[in-house]
This record gives sequence, structure tokens and C-alpha cells, in this order.
Amino acid sequence: METKNDKPYAQREKVYLNGNIYPDIRVGMQRVNLTPTVTVKDGKRCVSPNAPVLIYDTSGPFSDPAIQVDLKKGLPRMREPWIIARGDVEQLDGPTSDYGRMRRADASLDHLRFEHIALPYRARAGKQVTQMAYAKAGIITPEMEYVCIRENMNCAKLGIQSHITPEFVRQEIAAGRAVLPANINHPESEPMIIGRKFLTKINTNLGNSATTSSIEEEVEKAVWSCRWGGDTLMDLSTGQNIHETREWIIRNSPVPVGTVPMYQALEKVEGRVEALNWSVYRDTLVEQCEQGVDYFTIHAGVRRKNIHLADKRLSGIVSRGGSIISKWCLLYDRESFLYEHFDDICDILSQYDVAISLGDGLRPGSIYDANDEAQFAELDTLGELVVRAWQKNVQAFIEGPGHVPLHKIRENVERQVIACHDAPFYTLGPLVTDIAPGYDHITSAIGAAQIGWLGTAMLCYVTPKEHLGLPNRDDVRTGVITYKIAAHAADLAKGHPGAMVRDNALSKARYDFRWRDQFHLSLDPDRALEYYKEGKHEDGEYCTMCGPNFCAMKLSRDLATLNK
Amino acid sequence: METKNDKPYAQREKVYLNGNIYPDIRVGMQRVNLTPTVTVKDGKRCVSPNAPVLIYDTSGPFSDPAIQVDLKKGLPRMREPWIIARGDVEQLDGPTSDYGRMRRADASLDHLRFEHIALPYRARAGKQVTQMAYAKAGIITPEMEYVCIRENMNCAKLGIQSHITPEFVRQEIAAGRAVLPANINHPESEPMIIGRKFLTKINTNLGNSATTSSIEEEVEKAVWSCRWGGDTLMDLSTGQNIHETREWIIRNSPVPVGTVPMYQALEKVEGRVEALNWSVYRDTLVEQCEQGVDYFTIHAGVRRKNIHLADKRLSGIVSRGGSIISKWCLLYDRESFLYEHFDDICDILSQYDVAISLGDGLRPGSIYDANDEAQFAELDTLGELVVRAWQKNVQAFIEGPGHVPLHKIRENVERQVIACHDAPFYTLGPLVTDIAPGYDHITSAIGAAQIGWLGTAMLCYVTPKEHLGLPNRDDVRTGVITYKIAAHAADLAKGHPGAMVRDNALSKARYDFRWRDQFHLSLDPDRALEYYKEGKHEDGEYCTMCGPNFCAMKLSRDLATLNK
Repeated sequence: METKNDKPYAQREKVYLNGNIYPDIRVGMQRVNLTPTVTVKDGKRCVSPNAPVLIYDTSGPFSDPAIQVDLKKGLPRMREPWIIARGDVEQLDGPTSDYGRMRRADASLDHLRFEHIALPYRARAGKQVTQMAYAKAGIITPEMEYVCIRENMNCAKLGIQSHITPEFVRQEIAAGRAVLPANINHPESEPMIIGRKFLTKINTNLGNSATTSSIEEEVEKAVWSCRWGGDTLMDLSTGQNIHETREWIIRNSPVPVGTVPMYQALEKVEGRVEALNWSVYRDTLVEQCEQGVDYFTIHAGVRRKNIHLADKRLSGIVSRGGSIISKWCLLYDRESFLYEHFDDICDILSQYDVAISLGDGLRPGSIYDANDEAQFAELDTLGELVVRAWQKNVQAFIEGPGHVPLHKIRENVERQVIACHDAPFYTLGPLVTDIAPGYDHITSAIGAAQIGWLGTAMLCYVTPKEHLGLPNRDDVRTGVITYKIAAHAADLAKGHPGAMVRDNALSKARYDFRWRDQFHLSLDPDRALEYYKEGKHEDGEYCTMCGPNFCAMKLSRDLATLNK
Repeated sequence: METKNDKPYAQREKVYLNGNIYPDIRVGMQRVNLTPTVTVKDGKRCVSPNAPVLIYDTSGPFSDPAIQVDLKKGLPRMREPWIIARGDVEQLDGPTSDYGRMRRADASLDHLRFEHIALPYRARAGKQVTQMAYAKAGIITPEMEYVCIRENMNCAKLGIQSHITPEFVRQEIAAGRAVLPANINHPESEPMIIGRKFLTKINTNLGNSATTSSIEEEVEKAVWSCRWGGDTLMDLSTGQNIHETREWIIRNSPVPVGTVPMYQALEKVEGRVEALNWSVYRDTLVEQCEQGVDYFTIHAGVRRKNIHLADKRLSGIVSRGGSIISKWCLLYDRESFLYEHFDDICDILSQYDVAISLGDGLRPGSIYDANDEAQFAELDTLGELVVRAWQKNVQAFIEGPGHVPLHKIRENVERQVIACHDAPFYTLGPLVTDIAPGYDHITSAIGAAQIGWLGTAMLCYVTPKEHLGLPNRDDVRTGVITYKIAAHAADLAKGHPGAMVRDNALSKARYDFRWRDQFHLSLDPDRALEYYKEGKHEDGEYCTMCGPNFCAMKLSRDLATLNK
């Protein structure tokens, strides 16, 4: 039953579940086919089968042996027929941003350019094309049914009751409690949902900086992060050729892509904060909307009057976007153009269904600064802004810290829920101590599991290189797996329907000494197998940890005969 | 001010604090001497010094450049004068256990034997030599003042109030709420304390199994684990030459050493559980007491009537000691000799001040089995036994799980506190999910931080090899650092006096771009430096993560000038 496949999904099988409302939807997932449990009772060999386990799959077509992905052509445009069928978008004859047109016309970029750029879509005049608009209008979109199937994967076969129905998905999106990021210009993206009543999601950060990394590396890391389990990815490039790098990433990304448009805006004015203005920022938004970015981090919550609150801090402002816009506000001694043009921003985003991730420009950067006045003042502003986004049918979520000791995490979440009217929370970690650079994937996974359990909808991963340098491929893998652990720990604690199925199957495989099954069910089968093999023992009913005479599981199974 | 020193303590300085009650006590610790903060204000260079930070140090003489440790001779016997001065012990003319005498007489072992074995001490008839006995008698021992100084390290200089006084230490030990493991035959050990009102401690497990590892490797790993921060270490050897390996480890261990005597007892009867009996077990206890083991894990809480409760489980009994004694109980259909001879055990241990770690033989081995009837039934028995231990002045703590999802951790701790009358809790993790073999240091650190915050006194580390094989040196380092993180996160959340000093100093160094100071303050300076260097950037005010133009901290510091 197992298909030949590339690592890391060797020995797993790509399968699809179809929709009911939309029978042509095919939701991809991984099926782990298990070997039977074999026991010997009274001299008789007893074979009992083990049901296959379905695993949530963010790798898209990359793990389907039937699809040959050509990075130069990009992924299949799965959602395009759904988008067109709604009859509310028009196809433009090219980018409408000044910058997009300029880059397109620049022949010197031809060698860098993704070859098959489609013409962008935009809402027809007077039409509302966001998932939130549809949800409020009572429409269950294919995207909504898709995420419902994905979230409930193991429920139907095992008879597990789930609160998640297509109608429930619609209600959560309509109320702003969940976000389904789905830019109409990123039809390659497989629908997923971010909300506290759904599976906890993880985001990975990628992107070059001025000092290192190339397009190839970034695309490779993007694909790599999806294969290991990243639910969304943010392209935080700040170096050369941001526009072209992003095109490559989006065209090959089966998951939603986020950016911080301010980074590119600042590059456009050669890093001079004083040269930033609404015009260059606005053009950047349009440029990225038309490329297919699914959500933007926008630090519109940094108010002129609140910046001084960071003066009392040990580590000031540690958000890149936050520090840029704070500097702008102080230079001109006025409210930021992000705050002043917030409604204009929403008007642009609503034409493409780009979601807003309301950035926490004043998030704490150390344990000392956690839960301080600066952070909470900004949170209140984010609460005002999220309501304004919803009024324009723009989907929105709220970014959070950062660095918070364990005992202050609950307050952080509870204030966010109230201040931001149940909008989804999206946090970076938080790190629960500052003393372990080189291990901040772990310091932050501790906080992430805790804050996820308390209802945070998406966790932004942290790699071992945090605070020290740009992550490489190995760091991305470690960061993703670490955050899959934190998210899954949260899902178990929240009681997400079916979350325990995988734990139970793996533990049964472990108890049965079905080693291969145990590895195939694990988050990182390659790593588990590698460590197991290091022991150099023969394949048998023990590992080098305890040796043959001290294996508790073996002894425990022997008890079954004695206990009768 | 920085001394030349071996890794991993390069650039740190070994310093000693003296006692007040006992002025000759010298408590070793690491001092990180920091460079000053340099700022430029209105064209003037302003230099302000940063106070040094003291770091709790488990590495003993190994990090003191003034002491040349010879592994063949063992460490200085620091506590021996204190023990002798109390006038309540006698020095024996050799081991009193049959096995100890036999090994001593066996010339074929000469090439393996530690050369400088001292004659063992034992309490003189009618004398009580445990720290608990002294505490109940109102005596503050040098050991008690030692731990008090260690726990309060950074308080005095910074004017931080601490609840921990020598008298408080005495009271906690007298009440059984804290344990100070201090076998009179392990005078090389530096006193430390295990209790919920003190710093959260971590234990590392070492030891060979039948399939792998040598004496040299195990001693090297023991020293290595102390250098990285292990507070105690358990020698869980089950292979060849357990007796001799242990001697080498104890003589070179500056931290308390624990064992599970059942493992060696089983080796003595060639792995045949049916051949186990009180006589061989008793002899093993005496043998190990006289070698200097500081605490024994004893699975006396497994009652014949409760074993069947594990039948309902997904993964049965996963404690090695638990499965061995369960098998014995079922084979003979009777109560275990550990339970029946519990008072005899305590009588032996009290003569050497060996503490009991009441083993959780029925701890859950999977998320599915967490907090079940089997575990809690055993916990109630442990509660009975701990009172019996205290009646004999034997110090005791209680072992705990294992595998527990986040939302069930609190119940686990609260039941332990009540059932076991506030005796310290010592848990393995717990792992908060089963699906990540190869990363169980992380799955368990999430649970460990949580359970530590709730008051668990000591956390048994888990390495990346858990469930897969025996850890190597690198795994030990990763496991120790991961658990230092969990323990420190718990200490911050518990509000341990002075715990935040190190976080604050590191974050200030980070904000000041004092990179070297940041690394020296971190849990693993070598790793942090290695990652930083990978970026290959020039030494300056940024790292490759964001590049020079996007460093938030740099921007944030610039704001100081604008904000006036």
C-alpha cells in the first residue's frame, strides 16, 4: 500500500478526500499505512490489523508522486476555477503598481524572473471578494469546505464527533474569529484556517537579508518548510531582488505567504526612514497584492503618543517594522501614515482578499519588558483597527510577543481576546527566558505550547539561530518540527477532535515494537530512524537505551501471560 | 578579570563565597565579568560599568584552574571534615556487603578498579546521621548553609530579598519538604537542595547498557553532564562491571549520584526475575551505600493488587524497575519484597544518609495512559511510604511521569502534593505528546517547564535519543541545556529570588551589542558563538539575521536621540 516517494515522506501515501458540497474539491493528506499487531497466545499467532492514520499535509503537490513539479512553471493553480466561477473578479492586463510595471519592463532582470507570471486578478468594481464578505453573506465557499475536511481528517472513520462543519467555518470567519488567507492571485495555495477553535497553525519565516542568501536558497527553504509542516510562510527578505524572489516563492508555495511590506518600501528608498511615505508604501501594497501575497504584517498600531512608553524598557523596540515606523513618527513628530491611511489600506486589501496581520511593533524583547504598558497600549489600538478592517470585510489577526515568562502568558492572551474582540492571535514564541541563545527554538516552544493551549491560533516559529544569524535549511527543519510539537501539544490540551489519534497509533506501535510504523507516524521519520540506527543493534524487540534484558515494554508485555 | 580556563567555561571566572555560620565553607560559582556599556551622548563618550553576574555552578573543581583534577585519584573530599567533626560516624575496615567484599578481592578486576578507594563510613550504633535527623534536632549543618549561599547567589549584592535562610533550609528539610542528598561516603559531593521553594534542579541519566558503552565513556559523560549544569546524575548502568563503573563515577562526581539498585540486583541473578529476593537486594543496597550513592530509586509503591490496573493501558508498564518488580509479584503472587521490607530498607539507608527516590513503577508511558487509575493508586502508596521513611529520618522524594498532556499536568502535581504530604516531586519530563521521537528533549521540556512552575522540585532530563537509543556526549549536552532552560523558565515563573538577574544582564548585553558578554552569560556560550560566527559577518552592531539596515535594536537605540 505504500508508494515510492521522495523524502521526508517515504513510506507514506498521498491521498485525497473529496468534498460533499463541492464534490470536485480534493483535499490532499498523508496516509500512514500500518502493519498489523502480531501476538502469540497459547502458541497461536494472532494478527490484528491497525487502521491507517491520516496526517495533515502542508506539502501540497510536492509529495504527490503523480505530479511532477517544475519550479520554473510553478504549482497547479487549483483555486483559479473557484475564483473565476464566483464571477466577481476581473483579470488585469498587467500589474497596476508603478514598481510592478517598472520591474516587469526591466530587461536586466530577465535572468532572475519567474517565466510564467499570470496576469493579476482584482475585484470588479463594487464587488466584495474576501472570504469574510462571502461568510457574512451566508456563502460557504469551496475554500471553507476544504478547510473543514482538512481539520476533521481522522474524525469520520473513527466516529469522532467534531464541532467543525462547513457552516461552523463560515460563522467563525464571518465573526472575525478565524481567518482563511486566500489572495485571489495565489490560486496555488491550499486553503487553511487560522482560529482558536481550529488546529493550531505554525508560520515559518524565510527571506534573505542584505548580507546573505540567494533566490534559489530561499525557494528551496520555502519548499522545505512546507514539506516539514509549515502552515504559512513569511517572506521577510530585505536584500536584493525582493520582488523577483517573492514571485518564485509564491508560485511554488502550496501554503499562504505573508510579508511585511514596510521592508520592501524601505529598500525602495535606500534604507532612509525619513524618505518613507504613503505613496511608496501604497504602491508596495498594490505590487504585492497583485503578486499573490496572502497576508501583510502592518504595524499600524504604533501611535505617536505611545512610543515613549518604550523608553522605560531594558531592550527598547525589537520589532523591525515597529522600530522603522517609530523612527518615522519621531522624525516628523506626527502619527504614522499606516495609522492615518488604515482605511485606505483596507480598501486596497479587500480587492484581492489579502488579510492583515496587525503587527506588534512594541512587543517586548526581553523577560524584563514583558506585559508592559507599551505592549498593552498598542494592543488596545490593534483592537480599534481590527474592527475597522472587519468593516471593510478584510480578514485580520493580531500579532503578539515575543518574550514572556510562563506566569505572564495567560494575562497576555486574555487581554488580547478582550481588546481585540476575539480576533485570532498570532505570536512569536514567546520565549520564556532570555538566557539560551542558540536554543531559542526550545525557549520559545515552551511558551508557544502554553500560549497555543490558551487559544493562540498561529505560532510563528523560532529557529536555533534566532538572535544570532539567518537560519539555514537545517535550522528551518529544526524550527518547523519544534513548532509542530508545540502546536500539537496545544491541540491535545485544547481537545481538538482527533488530535490524539496519531499519538495513540504511535504509542501502540512503540508498545508492539513495530519500529517502522513508529517512525512513519512521527513528525520527523528520517531523524528517528537515524538515531535508532546509530545504536547499531540488530532489528529486534529492544533498542540500545535499555538493552534486551531491561526493556520495560518487553517485560510489560510478558506480564499479560502472568496476569491471567 | 577573566581567567584562562577550559571550555565550556572560557571567559568565566571561578569564585567562592564563604559562610557566616561556618566561615570555612567555600561555595564555588561562576562569575561572568561584563564589559561596560558605552554610549555616545551629545558627542561625549559615556562609559557605565555592568555588575558581574554569578552563575550557579555544578562543575565543582573541574572548572577551577587552581585545582588539577586527576580522574584516577578522584575529587577532593570536601565534606569529610564536616562529617567527622559531627562525631557520629565510624570508619569500617572495608565493605560490609558480600558483593563489595567479593569484588574487592577479585584480582582479575584490578585493571578496572579505581585505585584510591577510601574505607567506608557508617553511623555509629544509635546515632542518627541524616540531614533530616540533624534538621529535626534543630541543627544547621555546614551542608545547609552551603545550599543557602548557593541558592541566593545574586541576592546580597543586588539587595534582593530572599526567603531562603539557613534556618529556612533546616525547617524545609525537617518537614520533609526538601531533600539534601549527602551520603557520608560521597564527601566529594557539593551540597545542593531539592525542594519546591528552591531553584528547580535537573538530573541527568547516564550508564551503560548491555549493548554499548565503556567505563571511560561513562565517566567522561558524568563529568560532561556536571560541566553543563546537571544538578544530580543517575548511573543507570545495566551492563558489565557496574560496581567498578560506579566507583569511578562517584569519586569524580561533584554532584549527588543516584542509582536504581534493582538493576544491579537483577544483573547479579543473571537477569532472571524469578531469582530476585530480599537478600540479594539488601546486599546491593549496602554495597552501594558504602560506595557513596546519594539516593536510590526504589519501586516499593508497586502493590500486588494494583498491577492489573495497567492492563487497561495502551502502553502497559514503561518503568524498567516497575516492570521487573511487577513481574516478580505476579510470578510469586505476593507483595513485593521492596514493600514488605520497606522499614528494613530505611534502617539501612539512614546509616549512611542515603535518600530514597520513591519510584513510579506505574508511571504512564503514553498520552493515552496519563493520569490513570494505575498511576494514582501507586501515588497513594508512595504517600504512605514517605511517612514511614521520615519516621526513620530518611530523606525522600517522589518520582513522577512520564507522558502527560499539558492540560493534565496540574492535576498530577496537585494530587502528588496532597497524597505525598508535600514531599518533593521529581518527574521525568513529562512529554506532552508522543509523536516526536528524535525530539523528545523538546516534547518533554515543554512539560518539564510547566510542571516545574507548578512546584516540581527536580526534573529528570530527556535526551534526543529517548525511546531510540543510548545518548552520546552530544546528546547529554543537548539534554542538559534543554533542561536548564525548562528549570530556569520554572524559576522565573515561580519568582525565585534573583533568577531574573541573568536574563536581564543578557538582554542588556544584547541591546548594547556586547556580543561577547551575551555569549558568556548564556547557557551554552560555545554554541551561541558558533552560530554567530557561521554568519561570517564582521564584528559589529548587527548579525546576519536582519543585516545592518534592519536591526531593530540599532534603530531603537537611535530613537533615544530623537525622542528628546
